[in-house]
Amino acid sequence: MIDFPFLSEICRKTDSRIVLLVVDGLGGLPHPDTGKSELETARTPNLDALASRSACGVTTPVAPGVTPGSGPGHLALFGYDPLKYVIGRGVLEALGIGVDLGPDDIAVRCNFCTLDANGVITDRRAGRIPTAESAPLVEQLARITVPGVEIIVKPVQDYRFVVVIRGEGLSGEVADTDPQRTGFEPLEPVGKSDAAVRTAKKAARFIEAARDILGGRDTANMILMRGFSKRPEWPVFGERYSLSPGAIAAYPMYRGIASLLGMNVIPTGGDFDAELDTLSKHFDERDFFFIHYKPADAAGEDGDFDAKVSTLEELDKRVPRLLDLGADVVAIAGDHSTPSSMAAHSWHPVPLLINSQHTNEGLGTAGFNERECRTGYLGSLPATSLPLLLLAHAGKLDKFGA
Amino acid sequence: MIDFPFLSEICRKTDSRIVLLVVDGLGGLPHPDTGKSELETARTPNLDALASRSACGVTTPVAPGVTPGSGPGHLALFGYDPLKYVIGRGVLEALGIGVDLGPDDIAVRCNFCTLDANGVITDRRAGRIPTAESAPLVEQLARITVPGVEIIVKPVQDYRFVVVIRGEGLSGEVADTDPQRTGFEPLEPVGKSDAAVRTAKKAARFIEAARDILGGRDTANMILMRGFSKRPEWPVFGERYSLSPGAIAAYPMYRGIASLLGMNVIPTGGDFDAELDTLSKHFDERDFFFIHYKPADAAGEDGDFDAKVSTLEELDKRVPRLLDLGADVVAIAGDHSTPSSMAAHSWHPVPLLINSQHTNEGLGTAGFNERECRTGYLGSLPATSLPLLLLAHAGKLDKFGA
Repeated sequence: MIDFPFLSEICRKTDSRIVLLVVDGLGGLPHPDTGKSELETARTPNLDALASRSACGVTTPVAPGVTPGSGPGHLALFGYDPLKYVIGRGVLEALGIGVDLGPDDIAVRCNFCTLDANGVITDRRAGRIPTAESAPLVEQLARITVPGVEIIVKPVQDYRFVVVIRGEGLSGEVADTDPQRTGFEPLEPVGKSDAAVRTAKKAARFIEAARDILGGRDTANMILMRGFSKRPEWPVFGERYSLSPGAIAAYPMYRGIASLLGMNVIPTGGDFDAELDTLSKHFDERDFFFIHYKPADAAGEDGDFDAKVSTLEELDKRVPRLLDLGADVVAIAGDHSTPSSMAAHSWHPVPLLINSQHTNEGLGTAGFNERECRTGYLGSLPATSLPLLLLAHAGKLDKFGA
Repeated sequence: MIDFPFLSEICRKTDSRIVLLVVDGLGGLPHPDTGKSELETARTPNLDALASRSACGVTTPVAPGVTPGSGPGHLALFGYDPLKYVIGRGVLEALGIGVDLGPDDIAVRCNFCTLDANGVITDRRAGRIPTAESAPLVEQLARITVPGVEIIVKPVQDYRFVVVIRGEGLSGEVADTDPQRTGFEPLEPVGKSDAAVRTAKKAARFIEAARDILGGRDTANMILMRGFSKRPEWPVFGERYSLSPGAIAAYPMYRGIASLLGMNVIPTGGDFDAELDTLSKHFDERDFFFIHYKPADAAGEDGDFDAKVSTLEELDKRVPRLLDLGADVVAIAGDHSTPSSMAAHSWHPVPLLINSQHTNEGLGTAGFNERECRTGYLGSLPATSLPLLLLAHAGKLDKFGA
């Protein structure tokens, strides 16, 4: 929908305000014992009351059957077709830990691996060594210098870390050094263009230095580099939709995605209450806010049905505070489903509600959950449809054609 | 959805097995007296029980309002957009009678016509002469030889037959000889490229020989040739979806379509019971099976509501046998609707169910029919969405993006 061709002609600046709450991993699946999903099980009087006077539906993030990662799931909600707007793996990993990437930086997703005496990979993840063990190694790698570029090394978790190669004339078109299976030596970084050859040489220097540091160890004695990539240059969300957007997210990944789209990332605290404080404080400054609720996804990923129910009930308690701000449009969406029964992201459609002066009990559903929403006024939609619906409900879209 | 660009990156080989049962002409329309469709009228306890614990929906084969033939209807279910993957009419006719087409063969859909004394067409279908009358004529035509190519002539039904021109350097870009109306002479076959000119000359030689054989007759004294076409070269289904597919169909048309997509066509008997025997015998050999049930379509085409109800009840009795095989995913779909009230294929959405470990009573519908399925968990889908949904339910799709 980002490619709706006449968008600039019909977008209108107004004073109305939109708040989009993205509940990470919002959708779920029925518990086999009760036949009720997490949302159906949770006591959510505020969400249900809101749904009763909202336009409700379900969104498909990428395509039926396709399970999105956090990147594609969010891009879709912001109207960017995730099959067209693809974030490099290195960039996404860097965003996830809050690295501030410049336009020329090359981000690389790295991990420790274990080689045998012949230099052959015996474990691509170095026994998934815990952060306690990997952190001092990352610290040593961070001291590596490569002439002509700046090298930034940051821990992620366990055996994973990020390397950023900062300099001029670099390219992300460098092949992975991970052969994707054990029994082989790590590959050389190979560049596909002049800039990429230059970048590959810098990476090779880094790898050599890493080998010097790690080589004496029995395990985690080498590194693999994957997903060399640059921050993409995409249409700016605010320009595209004639909005002045602010993003409020406790987790760096979501701030990173927002910053890729040119949203103003507003510093906030470590949980949803802090995010609400931030929203409240900055509410008059912008006409679009993206605010992110993480705990539902985390509980779903843990496969803990009851915990996910609790996170939804906790969210519900905060809905009045969200509504009290008086936004003209309040929408609640999810980037993907995370059914507890699967303990993972999934492909299932995700509930959506849009509340505005144009919605009322005549449009609403009997509750905010998968079953009710799919029979709601909005029906089943591609997630990329959301921005235009938000603009429409906010009175920010003119008629198309006479 | 065949064009989902990152498919090879997210498809995963696993031991799980998928069985896709395509019920030809599955969908119907309510009987005017009862307001119930064929599926709603039929007693189908097994299908209904299965639907109660499945993800259900309705599929649109090509586009709303578009009635598909068997080719487009099946291609869509296999994920091939029927507007992009078009089977030549000659090829489709040849597949329908089980002709094994080589990659260089030119298949032509032919029929007998009647000319008057001036060589002008008076009946484009030669009074729809019955097979009893046409078969001996086809036999005579089959003796025609054309230098430089092999000519294969096979009867279809009534006034229709197929000619295959087998040789090298041939092309299907030859115009029809059927002027599409009476009062005109048959057209010369005209080629649009060097290879097509060569092909047209061979066809002209065949037509001349046919005129010599048939010219003395009062009716069915000439032939018309249409739909010159080669077997298309398309992405192979099994490669595309990382599956090892087997196709089981009693009717040659459906075996032909499966073979166009590179599926392994497993020889079987003449009815659905024989197909089930074949499926059972070969169940351990492959991870995807397409099995075809024809009688529903035939009864619908006959305009016989009660007969179609019976075919669905007969199918229902065999559902337990299908389920007992223990496939990880069982899906029941239709290539198109064939409402008895229309005595023809139609454009109406077609019921779909997908049963797997990820579906249960919480997702299911109260029955397997048009009305229930469209309120089901899957809602309304393009038929081309089916393969990714099957892969997802079988645990054969990785997450897209991090």
